[in-house]
Amino acid sequence: MLSKTHTKYIQSLQHKKLRDETGLFIAEGPKVVMDLLNSRKFVCKEIFALNNWLQEHSQQLSLLKDIVVTPVEDFELQKISSLSTAHAVVAVFEKRKPVYTIETALKITLVLDTIQDPGNLGTIIRIADWFGVENIICSIGCADMYNAKVVQSTMGSLGRVNVIYTDIIAWLKENRKVKIYSASLEGEDMKCIGKVKEGILIIGNEANGVSDEVMELVNEKINIPRIGEAESLNAAVATGIILSHIK
Amino acid sequence: MLSKTHTKYIQSLQHKKLRDETGLFIAEGPKVVMDLLNSRKFVCKEIFALNNWLQEHSQQLSLLKDIVVTPVEDFELQKISSLSTAHAVVAVFEKRKPVYTIETALKITLVLDTIQDPGNLGTIIRIADWFGVENIICSIGCADMYNAKVVQSTMGSLGRVNVIYTDIIAWLKENRKVKIYSASLEGEDMKCIGKVKEGILIIGNEANGVSDEVMELVNEKINIPRIGEAESLNAAVATGIILSHIK
Repeated sequence: MLSKTHTKYIQSLQHKKLRDETGLFIAEGPKVVMDLLNSRKFVCKEIFALNNWLQEHSQQLSLLKDIVVTPVEDFELQKISSLSTAHAVVAVFEKRKPVYTIETALKITLVLDTIQDPGNLGTIIRIADWFGVENIICSIGCADMYNAKVVQSTMGSLGRVNVIYTDIIAWLKENRKVKIYSASLEGEDMKCIGKVKEGILIIGNEANGVSDEVMELVNEKINIPRIGEAESLNAAVATGIILSHIK
Repeated sequence: MLSKTHTKYIQSLQHKKLRDETGLFIAEGPKVVMDLLNSRKFVCKEIFALNNWLQEHSQQLSLLKDIVVTPVEDFELQKISSLSTAHAVVAVFEKRKPVYTIETALKITLVLDTIQDPGNLGTIIRIADWFGVENIICSIGCADMYNAKVVQSTMGSLGRVNVIYTDIIAWLKENRKVKIYSASLEGEDMKCIGKVKEGILIIGNEANGVSDEVMELVNEKINIPRIGEAESLNAAVATGIILSHIK
């Protein structure tokens, strides 16, 4: 049985301010929760789950230390869930300091310039994980990686990709030793770019693209050839298409 | 000034049942509304907009016949909007019978097998428009193309792509004269497929992929090579990546 205080405390973690203050965030659903637990990169503090989910995972849960596990009813889960339909489990994890591996393995690094839609950010983290991109550098104006919708749409990739928030202009200036690419409607056809072993790929804001200040630091613009009439592609889709051609 | 009855009627169009009964749907925001108006494929019945938007578009609006235009205040727009932040204009359009151009221009046709997430469906329609795919065949289990979130995420492409709901198994059986491809984790590397001039590409459900019955009709499975560890890619992202390689 969940107390009112408890319910409110979990609901409060849907707000960035409270996540920042407590250093905690919420993950939901069997796949995302198990992936984060298995990644061993995030410390899990509390689990709220339906009885059948708890029984199914009793062995794994018994190996984890210092977790408070609370069995809940369906209607209680729905109350603390941010999804339209709650899925079996809601867990509270500790945020973590990203392990900054840029120097040792630059390879291809994604830089996100004000990606504001949480669904897009989560999908881009999942794409990075698929294509083996280890680091994502986010501008301060990007959506919060611990937003419930971001966590959800990463589908568990959050534990396998480093997401770092910083002043991307300063960061790009420091890392100019490798070539800086950006997705752009006026760039060169990506099919002419060839494979890229080391480089930085900048993805711009959903509505405004890469900002002018950032664009000044770009060495090469990459364009996805358009055959039809849509004005643009979704930012996450563009990221996936470009990575699939240059990786 | 919006009456209560009017507000309720517009809100009711957020439900598929009411959209089916009335044959109407809602589009929101300057870009989507203008693209649908300019496409001349959808008849616009009513426009609710802020005064400055109406002034800006007074010339275009004066050319349109039989549209009821109602100036509204910000707070009224917010009430009838399905977005977290309403954008200047909400319009009521008539649904239309898709123009079935399959026979004359098969080229590449997308078939969606139970794409349930409205954001994914809208993004796929936008991707189809970018890559010049004229027809999308949706299984009956797909999200409704007139759902507000679908309309929103098409970013205006709804007027340029035919979306047809049908029994896809019967449809595929009728159209077997061209090769049928499907996105699949066990398929052949898409880089070995080469360009496809005529063909059908099936995209499966977000969680379960292409259903067994549909898979039996597939001639060739296409795989997006994975370098990292994510278990899968978002359905819309996978559609974009495969189309960018075979178109």
